[in-house]
Amino acid sequence: MRSKEFLIGKTLMGRLPKGEDLLTSIEQIAEEQEIKVAKVDVLGAVEKAVIGFYDQDERYYKSIPVDQQLEIVQASGNITQKDGSVKAHIHVTLGDREGKTYSGHLMNGTIVFAGEVVIQELIGPELHRMYDEPTGLPLWDL
Amino acid sequence: MRSKEFLIGKTLMGRLPKGEDLLTSIEQIAEEQEIKVAKVDVLGAVEKAVIGFYDQDERYYKSIPVDQQLEIVQASGNITQKDGSVKAHIHVTLGDREGKTYSGHLMNGTIVFAGEVVIQELIGPELHRMYDEPTGLPLWDL
Amino acid sequence: MRSKEFLIGKTLMGRLPKGEDLLTSIEQIAEEQEIKVAKVDVLGAVEKAVIGFYDQDERYYKSIPVDQQLEIVQASGNITQKDGSVKAHIHVTLGDREGKTYSGHLMNGTIVFAGEVVIQELIGPELHRMYDEPTGLPLWDL
Repeated sequence: MRSKEFLIGKTLMGRLPKGEDLLTSIEQIAEEQEIKVAKVDVLGAVEKAVIGFYDQDERYYKSIPVDQQLEIVQASGNITQKDGSVKAHIHVTLGDREGKTYSGHLMNGTIVFAGEVVIQELIGPELHRMYDEPTGLPLWDL
Repeated sequence: MRSKEFLIGKTLMGRLPKGEDLLTSIEQIAEEQEIKVAKVDVLGAVEKAVIGFYDQDERYYKSIPVDQQLEIVQASGNITQKDGSVKAHIHVTLGDREGKTYSGHLMNGTIVFAGEVVIQELIGPELHRMYDEPTGLPLWDL
Repeated sequence: MRSKEFLIGKTLMGRLPKGEDLLTSIEQIAEEQEIKVAKVDVLGAVEKAVIGFYDQDERYYKSIPVDQQLEIVQASGNITQKDGSVKAHIHVTLGDREGKTYSGHLMNGTIVFAGEVVIQELIGPELHRMYDEPTGLPLWDL
């Protein structure tokens, strides 16, 4: 497997701001803290969500709005670089008031009600996303 | 974002006891090991579960019993302090025998069948939960 | 609780190969990198999946094929040893094009479309799986 090797740096535990976009909030923390590569985990709740499903044949993200209050049962992924900027890639599991579950790729439009984020910085080489022809996705250039 | 910074300490890998309450078991480990702040991840199975959904308008956790055998697909969250004691905040994803998924806030009444827990201790400042007026939740005092 | 204590080692961030078996791919990385104990997290997408549900009474894994494109919303677990070889124990949450969620124990037959894996090596004692009579499962020998 193609991979890069890192050592763990600092771990940040923070509160995501109520009413803000979940994905943007995570990227802002990374920018503020000058974090280039990290592992990210979130739990909390959202006022509403937009999740994505990648159509592997048509090669686009289908957007799935879930317009209701939801638990963030888990939102996890990573921070790396794309086009010279911080890029968070996060997938999310959401639970409604019956415990019914919605899940997919975290998209903009997911609004924080309350959020606890744990960011584990990883120290090592640069890690950038580049267009990958076989999948049509921006994957790590390893 | 408001956050605190930690360094990673020891990592514990342990077995949760069959027949015991999942949430209580996690808090007991933290107490026994004198862990104040940590990241927690569990997988395994439960005999039955109780999950919660936070009603953002009415400001209470609705309790959702799921009275059947389930896989713990993931249970993850953190350990911090509340009112001078260890407090685990864990959200859980559960799968039934058809792969149908239930998820929410982990509540007491969720009984372990088998459980593998990974606890990553975080070394740094104290981190306490305090009542947060905008959400009605006990959030980190940052 | 019975547990063992570890210190964190290197963290690998890697790409899982398109068209390969997800579970086997994870175990191959561990073998190549001579990793004995680790925490594993994956996100990405699969071409199709097979998940398992452990029947606690009949003591077998029921196999649940999900024969469609799915997001890997999270796949997480651990690497330890069993019968002298690397053994990955991974549970997985999958989302379809409507955000509907399937989840369970990751089984062979789950085929990678794209996958980002983070493996955190844990340095310390050996950790082996042994048959556990009360559950019928291969649990950690602590």
